[in-house]
Formats: sequence, C-alpha cells, structure tokens
Amino acid sequence: MLRCVFLLMCLLHLKHTILGAVTPKPILINGTYINPELGKYHARLRSLARSCLEIKENHGGTQDGIYILTTESGTYYQAFCDMSTAGGGWTLVASVHENNIKGKCSVGDRWSSQQGNDQNLPEGDGAWANTATFGSAESSTSDDYKNPGYYDITAQDVSVWHIPNDEQLRNWTSSAILRYHTESQFLRQHGGNLYHLFKKYPVRFRAGQCKSDTGAVSPVVYDTGDKDSTTKLYGPSAGKEFESGFTTFRVFNSDQAAMAMCSGIKPTECNPQHYCIGGGYFPQRQQCGDFTGLDLREAASKQLTESSVLLFYRLEAH
Amino acid sequence: MLRCVFLLMCLLHLKHTILGAVTPKPILINGTYINPELGKYHARLRSLARSCLEIKENHGGTQDGIYILTTESGTYYQAFCDMSTAGGGWTLVASVHENNIKGKCSVGDRWSSQQGNDQNLPEGDGAWANTATFGSAESSTSDDYKNPGYYDITAQDVSVWHIPNDEQLRNWTSSAILRYHTESQFLRQHGGNLYHLFKKYPVRFRAGQCKSDTGAVSPVVYDTGDKDSTTKLYGPSAGKEFESGFTTFRVFNSDQAAMAMCSGIKPTECNPQHYCIGGGYFPQRQQCGDFTGLDLREAASKQLTESSVLLFYRLEAH
Amino acid sequence: MLRCVFLLMCLLHLKHTILGAVTPKPILINGTYINPELGKYHARLRSLARSCLEIKENHGGTQDGIYILTTESGTYYQAFCDMSTAGGGWTLVASVHENNIKGKCSVGDRWSSQQGNDQNLPEGDGAWANTATFGSAESSTSDDYKNPGYYDITAQDVSVWHIPNDEQLRNWTSSAILRYHTESQFLRQHGGNLYHLFKKYPVRFRAGQCKSDTGAVSPVVYDTGDKDSTTKLYGPSAGKEFESGFTTFRVFNSDQAAMAMCSGIKPTECNPQHYCIGGGYFPQRQQCGDFTGLDLREAASKQLTESSVLLFYRLEAH
Repeated sequence: MLRCVFLLMCLLHLKHTILGAVTPKPILINGTYINPELGKYHARLRSLARSCLEIKENHGGTQDGIYILTTESGTYYQAFCDMSTAGGGWTLVASVHENNIKGKCSVGDRWSSQQGNDQNLPEGDGAWANTATFGSAESSTSDDYKNPGYYDITAQDVSVWHIPNDEQLRNWTSSAILRYHTESQFLRQHGGNLYHLFKKYPVRFRAGQCKSDTGAVSPVVYDTGDKDSTTKLYGPSAGKEFESGFTTFRVFNSDQAAMAMCSGIKPTECNPQHYCIGGGYFPQRQQCGDFTGLDLREAASKQLTESSVLLFYRLEAH
Repeated sequence: MLRCVFLLMCLLHLKHTILGAVTPKPILINGTYINPELGKYHARLRSLARSCLEIKENHGGTQDGIYILTTESGTYYQAFCDMSTAGGGWTLVASVHENNIKGKCSVGDRWSSQQGNDQNLPEGDGAWANTATFGSAESSTSDDYKNPGYYDITAQDVSVWHIPNDEQLRNWTSSAILRYHTESQFLRQHGGNLYHLFKKYPVRFRAGQCKSDTGAVSPVVYDTGDKDSTTKLYGPSAGKEFESGFTTFRVFNSDQAAMAMCSGIKPTECNPQHYCIGGGYFPQRQQCGDFTGLDLREAASKQLTESSVLLFYRLEAH
Repeated sequence: MLRCVFLLMCLLHLKHTILGAVTPKPILINGTYINPELGKYHARLRSLARSCLEIKENHGGTQDGIYILTTESGTYYQAFCDMSTAGGGWTLVASVHENNIKGKCSVGDRWSSQQGNDQNLPEGDGAWANTATFGSAESSTSDDYKNPGYYDITAQDVSVWHIPNDEQLRNWTSSAILRYHTESQFLRQHGGNLYHLFKKYPVRFRAGQCKSDTGAVSPVVYDTGDKDSTTKLYGPSAGKEFESGFTTFRVFNSDQAAMAMCSGIKPTECNPQHYCIGGGYFPQRQQCGDFTGLDLREAASKQLTESSVLLFYRLEAH
C-alpha cells in the first residue's frame, strides 16, 4: 500500500526508490491493482451499506450480484442485490426451499419445523420471527436461506422470485417461473420488515381464525408471468379458492393452523395449506412442512413445488 | 484510496488533478470517509485480534458490540465483545439454546445430541470437545452458537449470561435474568479454555462417577442477580440439591450419565439432570437434551428454561 | 491509513505534522503495521484469488494454511490451501465426516441423506450435485464440510486425505492415515470439478448398473501410505472385491443403489456399499449413510471409519 504511494511519489518527485523496500508490499502499480480480484473486493467494500438500495443510491451500484452489507450492530455479511427490477435496489434476505415435499416437518424444514409436527411447538421453529440465520445467497435455490437483512433492513415493499431448485445464481432471472413485487409500501404499517410483521402476526397455531385474522395483503406488479400464469402454477382445485395478483402474509386454515405466506395470491377459502407456505403446528400432520400440503390433492404443480421462493426487501426507491 | 492521496497532495503541492483519474476510486475526501460504514469497518479491522481482551488492551476497544477476531490458523470470524463487565475484554464464544424442551436429543440439540439418545454415542455429538462451529453472535438467543474462539482463545475465567430467548443483541444486558463471572482463573489448570477442559474431562456416559469425578468448580461473582435469585431460577425440589454461587463443569448423575455445565451452582446430590445442562447418552431417555431434564419435576423455572446460556472467555485483565 | 502516509511524507519533506490529526487513524508507523494481525490479514487479502493454485502461482503463497478465496459471482470465503504436496496449490473444498456410523441417513449425513433412507429421495439430499454449502475448514474433521470452491473452482485433479476425526488443522499432515492425489487430469473430461461430474453421473438410485455405469476412475499417486496400506484400511472380505491404487467416482451396487466415491480403490465386485461412501436411496436401509455400510461385515477398519475424508482440487500445476 505504502510502497505504491512511493512509486507514485517517485513519478512526482523522482528518486525515492531506496525507500521502496519498506513493508507492506504494494497492491498497485501506476494506480492499477496488481491483483484484479483485490480491486473487485475493494470496489465492493467501498459500497458497504445496510441494504442494496443504499448501495444503488449512495454508491452507484448498478450490477446485479453479491455485495457486502452490515447490520446495525456491525455484523458483516454477503447478500445478492437485484439492481435491475423496477428500479433495482432489492436485497435478497431469504429463500424457502422444500428439500422433501413428503418429509413433513423434517430436517431441512427451517421455515416450519425440523422437530416434526409437535403440538408443544405451536410456532414450529419460529424462524419467521427470530434472528436465527442459515444458508447462503449462492445456495438459496438448494437450501433454506435467511440472512441478517431479514430482521435488520427497514423496507416498505417485497419482491418474490420462484426459481427452479438448484439453478445457479447467474441463471436466476432467465429461469424464473414467476417474479413479482409490491408497490403498496404495506410493510410501513408492520414495523418495516417481515421479522416485525411476524412478531405482530405470529405464525402460531390458534393465534387467530381463517379470514378474520389475516396479517397483511398487498396487490403485486408482475415482472415474470401474470395473474393467469400464477393461477396455473397451482392446481385446478386450488384455483377456485384464491384470487391471484396479490401476496398475503400470515393466514389460518379452518383448523386454526397458521401459515406464513401465500405467494402471488389472496386466499378466499379456508384451506390455505394447499396454496400457502411456511407455518407452525398443524392438527393434520401431512400438512406440516416448508411447503405445507402443496403436494396433496394436486394442489400445486411440480413446477411450483420444485422451485425455491426467494424473498427480497426494498425501501421506497427515490 | 490512491486518488484520495492525490487529493491531499493537491492540497499540499497543488495542481496534480490530471492524475486524479487513476483507479482506484477515492474512499476519503479531506481525510474523511466518503462512506461512513466503510470507516466503521476499517476501524474494526484496525483492532483485529485473537480475543476481545486484546482488542480492549492493545487497540483501545471500549464499546460493547461485534468485532473481528482471528484464530491462530488465520480463520477470521465476528464475535460479540463485552467491554463493560468487571473490566471488560470478554469474548462471547458460545450459547446453549433449548429449541424444544420436550424434544429429547432432537434436531437443534447441538450441545447434547441431534441423533436421539443413542448408546452408540456416549458423548452425544461431542460439541463440547471438538472444533465444529455453528450459529452466529446475533442469533445466539435463537439458536445454539459456537465460534472458533471456543477452542482457539486462551482464557482463565468465564462469564455467563442467561438471556430470554429471541432477545436482540442491543437488549441483552438489560434483559438478562442472571449474569456472573469467575475470578478464580480456574481454566489455567485445564488447558486454558473449555475445549481443553472437556478433552480432559469428557462429557461421556460412564467416564466417571457422581461427586468423585466432577471436572471443575469455581466460585462466581454476580453481575446480575445473586445467590438467592439463582436458587429461585431452579425449582424448590432442585434447590435442596445444590449450593448456589458457583459454576461447575462436567458432572455425573447416579446413572453415570455426564453433563457439561451447572450454571451458577455446585451440585451436592446425584441428580444433576435437573439443574445441569448439555451432555451425552442418558440411560433415561427423557433426560437427554441441551437442557437435559430441567422440564421434569418442576426442576427449573420457565424463566430459566426459556433463556439461552451465553458463555464468554477472558484471560486475566491487566 | 492516510495519516501514516503523512508520517512518511514528514520524514521525506518535514513539517506537515499539523495535518497529522486527520482521520482515519494510522495503521502503520515507519512502514510497519501497528497491529501485526492486520498485517497478516492484508497479506492474505493481497493474494485473494479463485483457487489456491492461483495464490501459489500468481501471488507467491507458499505456506500451508487458511487463505481467502472468491467465487466467480464474488462470494468471499476462507479455505485451507495445501501448498506442499506434489507442487502444492491444492484447495480443500469438502470433507466427508461420519458422525454416527450406526445412524443410517440421520442428522449429520449431509453427503447422503439427513431425511432417513427415503425412496422419494433417490438422490438423498443431493449435496454432491448442488450448491448447498456447510461447515468450515477448521472443523472439517469434526463435521461435514463443503465450501463454494466445490462448484466454483475449475480443476483437473483431486487430492484426498484421510484424517482421524477431531484432529486439529495444525496436525492434519502428520496424523494422516492415507493421502494420495491423481495426476491423470480426469476431471477435464467431466466439466472441471466434482459438482459437474456428479451432474453428469448422478448419485441416484436406479440411474445405472453396477460396473457398466461407473462414472470415473483414475489411478492415484500416494503421498502417505501405499496400495497395501490402503487395502489394509478395508476389511479382509472387502479386500477381495477391489483393486487399490485408484480412486473411483459414482458407482452402483447390485441393487442399483448409487455411491459417490470409492477412496483409494476401484471396485471389481458389486458390493460397493462396503468400501465406497456417500450415496442416495438404498433398498437395504442399513447401507444408507455418509459412510454407507462400512460398519457391516467388518468391511472397514475402525481407523478408516473414524477418519474424515478431505477432498482437494487442483488445476494442472505449471
């Protein structure tokens, strides 16, 4: 670092090459990085921020990809930023990946319960409303994922991508079967992110009733697909029980079992276990799991159940 | 970085603005960080050390919070430092979090066994004496946590915090139900940390006998609570079987089942499964788990069983 | 950073000490790091690269140990580099650790299935061919390990170390019971790493037949041990069913169950479940697990089943 300064001072003032020996070693020669990877790393560090939106607006980040973020407490982590969709500035904070649709609240069901379907755990593992983190951005189509941004970032809207399982990052946008975002700023009334929303509306058995106690509903704007393609991703039977073009958080079924999210839809009946995901304890065991009972009664297409649900946050774009 | 040097050289020597174009981009203007988050990050890097005590003593770190540490081998990780209690310099290296008191050695019981109660695994998963790591500092009240400092840092004393589950970092101190530390330097005789202590005193079924083979006992100094409040956190029946004001590591019950830690107390009877935590195989299955049999016979209060046990290390403060 | 530049400029040009007050604080005095740990960190950053081979060849890294790597997408991670064996430049990308030889596809069996032996999951958890990552370099003898290099690094050859469980990094080489590497560049024909090899040759029940559908075989060069010591690590019965001095990837048994890797050997019979590891669904449950049925029929020595299998990658050394 210092030596490169000397190299430049030499250009400016000549003959200080004797001093060239001092440590540390140079990282630049004539203002260019000796190691281009280090240059890329420093470029990422220069845009260090609390969210992808700040990177875009304060530091001119325009490329989709992995950036470095920090929490309020100063925990550093890497996250994927979507800088393209509807103005960009979207931070990937979580993914819901079903590793075994027949495994009912088994290992890998981090958004419901890895403990089996246990009445002693009305909220299951509680991941929707705690600070546990798991997985990584690059593996978010192969494993459940939750980073510190999920609870740390202040947001108004969400963006949701459905990406076929095991698809690699570089192909996410092109392989997406459904992508949409909200513009209603609905998170403003719920504490500024899903962590706070689910503290307010717990994903807990018997915490409410079907219809009367739904947490939040917002209309969506489509980025890939539309209302019809959304409906088609679910089964013919399920299609009669919801309205597409919305996204819904925290619903109950007729057994008072809670689910976290209905992606792309607003339920109109009381069987959300066939078209909503995540959840706690279910009186009917076969409904328990990250993807609940989407495998039952041909409620959802293989295309949907074999895709991961990626969740992004964004504060109002300026 | 370089350009900012130029900016300053301009102030000093004038007119080198032509050179202003060279990469990399500046991170400072007139000696102030363009991106304050990067300034905070560089401040943390400047105090990079093997432990929080070194950060406090060698680099003037005085704020509680997340810092960057390194192991002897050069693995970098982030840890929480308590710079306030009894002189500060305490490194959070682990937390024991019970995700399901009724789940007996089930998924999430990383300090006992995630394999069920299995006689083929007399040490359970063995986490007390191996280098496996899991969780993160910010999620240590929502998940089991163990960082490389657990085996890498050389310490003499421990500090222990009992924090209600899911409490966020900023509220830990104010919400603690019990906090104490040792000053006996007991770890000096046991290899300098708990990793080495438990290599010497394995948490293994049949590795010893109740009372005669207890690993280590130390008196404690209270930072939150006292002997009476400690006793009250356990049940009335349990209270007759231990002396509070101590902390104990590696004990056996009358079945020769091993437990890792008795927090705030010294057992005087042979039923530690009701007031000590962690462990390996238990002849009585319902005693197996991160919080063993604390749920049985009203041995412990809900307040205790629904709090996480945070473990800190410190070498002698100078 | 800047101030240290001033300190030097003062040495060179005198009297700019007034400016000495500007932030940020210095990290160097007279060209030497105030904090030696920061110096080590910057030295590691200077060699930031996509693989250990690049660190060795482009940045002069010659010491075995932990270095910082990046994926194509810009995810940063720490990995162990073997800079000594057969020219060095080997990147540790994974380890297969059996946490419970009797636990058949139970928690911790990340290279087979944590879901039990489930016919609905013919590939088990699918870790051999997806981008899920887990564990860390320093804990790769105490836990399963897979870093982003597994799918990101382009390689031609592999190196394999068998290290007793729970052995610490500093003792790996001296405690190894078997070490070998390939020089055949066999990965060139299979996409350049094991991730791509296993996409081509899935570790999936019924994806092929014993013998006719073996994925890849390569002769090996021994670094610790030899053909005889390899054979001895397996049981007397098993010894008649393979030829040592090779390493094999993706084989089937007579039930069409798939296994990922036969370490140090080439099967000549159709019972690889007794000498090959990893895998998906097994018609015979007791064969399912990271170490399959190595515990049955005294197929393998305790020395082998209680050691972790560390996997390294290397592109052709120049």
